[in-house]
Amino acid sequence: MSHATTARFSGVIPPVATPLKLDGSIDHGSLERLVDHLVSAGVDGLFALGSTGETAYLTDAQRVSVSRTIVDAASGRVPVISGAIELTSVRTSEVARMLCATGVDAIVTTAPLYAINSVTEVAAHFRAVAAAIDVPLWAYDVPVRVHAKLGLDLLMQLATEGVLHGVKDSSGDDIAFRRLVAANAAAGRPLQLLTGHEVVVDAMALAGADGVVPGLANVDAAGYVRLWDATTRGDWETARAEQERLNQLFEIVFQPVGLSGDATGVGAFKAAMKAQGLIATATVANTVEAVDADAVERITAILRSLEMLPAAS
Amino acid sequence: MSHATTARFSGVIPPVATPLKLDGSIDHGSLERLVDHLVSAGVDGLFALGSTGETAYLTDAQRVSVSRTIVDAASGRVPVISGAIELTSVRTSEVARMLCATGVDAIVTTAPLYAINSVTEVAAHFRAVAAAIDVPLWAYDVPVRVHAKLGLDLLMQLATEGVLHGVKDSSGDDIAFRRLVAANAAAGRPLQLLTGHEVVVDAMALAGADGVVPGLANVDAAGYVRLWDATTRGDWETARAEQERLNQLFEIVFQPVGLSGDATGVGAFKAAMKAQGLIATATVANTVEAVDADAVERITAILRSLEMLPAAS
Amino acid sequence: MSHATTARFSGVIPPVATPLKLDGSIDHGSLERLVDHLVSAGVDGLFALGSTGETAYLTDAQRVSVSRTIVDAASGRVPVISGAIELTSVRTSEVARMLCATGVDAIVTTAPLYAINSVTEVAAHFRAVAAAIDVPLWAYDVPVRVHAKLGLDLLMQLATEGVLHGVKDSSGDDIAFRRLVAANAAAGRPLQLLTGHEVVVDAMALAGADGVVPGLANVDAAGYVRLWDATTRGDWETARAEQERLNQLFEIVFQPVGLSGDATGVGAFKAAMKAQGLIATATVANTVEAVDADAVERITAILRSLEMLPAAS
Amino acid sequence: MSHATTARFSGVIPPVATPLKLDGSIDHGSLERLVDHLVSAGVDGLFALGSTGETAYLTDAQRVSVSRTIVDAASGRVPVISGAIELTSVRTSEVARMLCATGVDAIVTTAPLYAINSVTEVAAHFRAVAAAIDVPLWAYDVPVRVHAKLGLDLLMQLATEGVLHGVKDSSGDDIAFRRLVAANAAAGRPLQLLTGHEVVVDAMALAGADGVVPGLANVDAAGYVRLWDATTRGDWETARAEQERLNQLFEIVFQPVGLSGDATGVGAFKAAMKAQGLIATATVANTVEAVDADAVERITAILRSLEMLPAAS
Repeated sequence: MSHATTARFSGVIPPVATPLKLDGSIDHGSLERLVDHLVSAGVDGLFALGSTGETAYLTDAQRVSVSRTIVDAASGRVPVISGAIELTSVRTSEVARMLCATGVDAIVTTAPLYAINSVTEVAAHFRAVAAAIDVPLWAYDVPVRVHAKLGLDLLMQLATEGVLHGVKDSSGDDIAFRRLVAANAAAGRPLQLLTGHEVVVDAMALAGADGVVPGLANVDAAGYVRLWDATTRGDWETARAEQERLNQLFEIVFQPVGLSGDATGVGAFKAAMKAQGLIATATVANTVEAVDADAVERITAILRSLEMLPAAS
Repeated sequence: MSHATTARFSGVIPPVATPLKLDGSIDHGSLERLVDHLVSAGVDGLFALGSTGETAYLTDAQRVSVSRTIVDAASGRVPVISGAIELTSVRTSEVARMLCATGVDAIVTTAPLYAINSVTEVAAHFRAVAAAIDVPLWAYDVPVRVHAKLGLDLLMQLATEGVLHGVKDSSGDDIAFRRLVAANAAAGRPLQLLTGHEVVVDAMALAGADGVVPGLANVDAAGYVRLWDATTRGDWETARAEQERLNQLFEIVFQPVGLSGDATGVGAFKAAMKAQGLIATATVANTVEAVDADAVERITAILRSLEMLPAAS
Repeated sequence: MSHATTARFSGVIPPVATPLKLDGSIDHGSLERLVDHLVSAGVDGLFALGSTGETAYLTDAQRVSVSRTIVDAASGRVPVISGAIELTSVRTSEVARMLCATGVDAIVTTAPLYAINSVTEVAAHFRAVAAAIDVPLWAYDVPVRVHAKLGLDLLMQLATEGVLHGVKDSSGDDIAFRRLVAANAAAGRPLQLLTGHEVVVDAMALAGADGVVPGLANVDAAGYVRLWDATTRGDWETARAEQERLNQLFEIVFQPVGLSGDATGVGAFKAAMKAQGLIATATVANTVEAVDADAVERITAILRSLEMLPAAS
Repeated sequence: MSHATTARFSGVIPPVATPLKLDGSIDHGSLERLVDHLVSAGVDGLFALGSTGETAYLTDAQRVSVSRTIVDAASGRVPVISGAIELTSVRTSEVARMLCATGVDAIVTTAPLYAINSVTEVAAHFRAVAAAIDVPLWAYDVPVRVHAKLGLDLLMQLATEGVLHGVKDSSGDDIAFRRLVAANAAAGRPLQLLTGHEVVVDAMALAGADGVVPGLANVDAAGYVRLWDATTRGDWETARAEQERLNQLFEIVFQPVGLSGDATGVGAFKAAMKAQGLIATATVANTVEAVDADAVERITAILRSLEMLPAAS
């Protein structure tokens, strides 16, 4: 595998939300503006088609169009990594190649879904996908969705082989993450290690993360850029203060009542982004429940209290 | 939804294995022979593209070709239900429509994968898929793969609405299944209820199942036909004796050592089918580990001891 | 281990509820009457201090007094097996010996609680408890409480060693139970195998269970005696009809709304028993929520509709 | 509840291992020396009878004797909090009162074990235990053993009521912990919040933890004292360096092969403590598997490489 690109992903890499029109189709105009907004805020890269991007709810054609719009809007200013989330390796490879054709700098995928596989088979899955593409492959560790954790030995073995170039860790297991950081350092840092947990970025930076994929950066990208910059300067008190401010903002995701995980997270982000004027509608993907007006009001109030709304609001 | 077909699925409905060539491509010749063998043995219907059919490992094009071969080979002698296993409703609907075009009599799907959905959203998912197709929709309840159980209230609500016409229950939860049987009976039997557990068919028939989807019927279809016939006559002692014989045969799936669930189940079935001359190779899907020669020998010995091998073996 | 008693437990072995006074203390008078009622109804044994007996909520002194009252009230008419549910083997052995002193015929225990043990350690646990007592030891497999399943190999190994004499299976895993039945038969039946699931007794009898531990028998012991008798005669249609009637009665446990598993099961049984005049109060153990009056009314209505209330009610 | 003591627990509070003699009885002499060693190293308090203290494997009499020895050896130099780990509130209260009589400054307990309880019932459990004792009550959140997480709303409600005075968080859920820190701060800090995860103390201190309960402090108490001191000075680079050194030491727990969680953690700590001369034998509790000689050699090698062995070794 000689890769055409050698883009590295570190710092703040927002998982870009996928704006939808009222009829559920992709709102490419809003998506372009969102990408431009994020890049202008100083983010270091973009993560297309992640869970926040509602990729599970998109057809392959939609995935390709979203990835292309993001790559085009980024226009080389920052690298783009795109999620190929599928059942197994043959299907993942198929989607990954489609996404590569849109110009992304890297692909990220999970262990197989629906399958009941051994660690040996999960390793074979990542090897097969890596062999099918000509950009670096990353692993996405998200047990709450995949229902299995990627183990330390598996990740380091695949890193050593050159199959994996990075990990987006959304496992919620900071202890395993810390051990992965240490093992990666001992191996000469073949992996870049990003945390997906936007509420503990200061702590994970101290623990050795190379960056963060914060869904909340769709709402406050500048805040995450300031936070990460503070960690790179070793200014931990400033990092913590910024994190605590962002965590107050994160309370928006707890405002919807009785909704699912998919509805509350992305729904709250989109409600906030609409209130900020970043996107045209807060429409979520088909079959996902909408956040109700009361919750939108509470979300808007949180934004207002943190001075996160445009002047006119 | 006025359905073009009104096929009902009861009795023995094997989940048809997908024979593969050594290079991993579909072995349509073996598949045709397998279908003919199953129909000749007296099965009541065919379940294409289930877990035993390795559908998770197939591309959409392969899924379509497998479904078409099964429908064509069945040639109207028995109805065919086909699995559309995908992440969410838009994608599921897309695959389901492709499969409908191959002439299947019904579609079966699971709750969304990867998504973190509420019961309301799972209901919306089934409604969306049902609205997208013109044949009856069934629910496939397989928590070991989907990581959530379909609840009684959800299933009966969707049955009452006419969204669901049947359930294939592979939940391993016989207590919930018994309660579903009772609720379905009280509601006038809008659902047909099949168990996916081939080792307790006698007991589930006594409990009120309308039929069974036995992976092991790929190896001994005639046995399941005899078993089910006994249950329909109320000859429970004969049913139990046949079940116990089949359960001795089922020990083939415990012969591979250290392999995954996907590798042992389908791998053992295919090894046995090859030993019986039903298929040309025992190749399993890409990235699934092969059953080793020692396990194949033990599987063959079990077949021999139960007189399940052709005379020449 | 030469055991002073050789009592065998098969047929209907109700897990005796522990009647409480309004102040939470043991109502020994009601308990005596309940035991006499159960024995008169024809049950084959009694299971003291199980989950239905709220043993987790009782002090050791209370456990001893409950076990003694049950043994004394049974008065040798049927054997008594008593649950020693504790964290680990030293503690379990201590409680088991106290219970042996009350005259029970067997002890039943689970795998360790709170501990994070290997299968080897779970085996050592059962061996240690068996060595500490002079009556047969049984295993209680209840993963919903212990959070681990007792495996086939472990159970058969301990059976072969003479450590275990029986299993009460409340695992809800009828497939594993069926395989255990077969393995036990192949080994010469060292174990007696009871199912704890009162709603599938007909099916589990067909599958080979030696008996049942039905919590619902506290409410309708005679029904379970009739059901089991039918299975022993091979009259499966009568068994099924009786089971279906009992399952209508079992709907009492779904009447409480928003309560925990411990509150709904035992709470519904006790509410029904009080309505039947079997016990003086429906008080449940300390910190368990009481069933409210509306649910009690619905429970009573179910009893009435099934003609399970005394004439005067 | 007016409490006789007002001890606060912050900083480094090791969960004291329980040294055993070869015959499994408590080695009070080694325990006294261990306590003295820990206090001399500068720890801020002692946690008796936690998971590391193998409390699940001890009789009540042993628990009382261990607690008394620790209290007596501490001799008022640091406060002692003692674990009352039992099935439900009546039993927990009974044990808690026994431990209070040994002079401990606080009691810590988990949600009920074996029970299937609602959040309302878990709250009632903590209230009942708090009402039964005259020292502050803490909650121990350890889902890997209790199989349920203590939620934010529950903890803050009980804190506001004065029922809970602190939480030992071993949930491995740093995201929930961060949110608990924020909610506690907003409520005026009614709770003290300790993390049980010894490998991320620097990060959790940055996140707002009041202290740590590090099992590994049995092996290197001085290291944790230096680490915590650095965090209190805001010297995060020093804290991180110390943490990373301690994490290299923590690799001792990964040296035993094929053993359970209980065997590897405490077993490795005890093997290291014996190699250091802190305790007389590395005996673990009854039915827990011993660490084998090869693993002990690897553990000793890690200690040697980190210069954690006495000069003569």
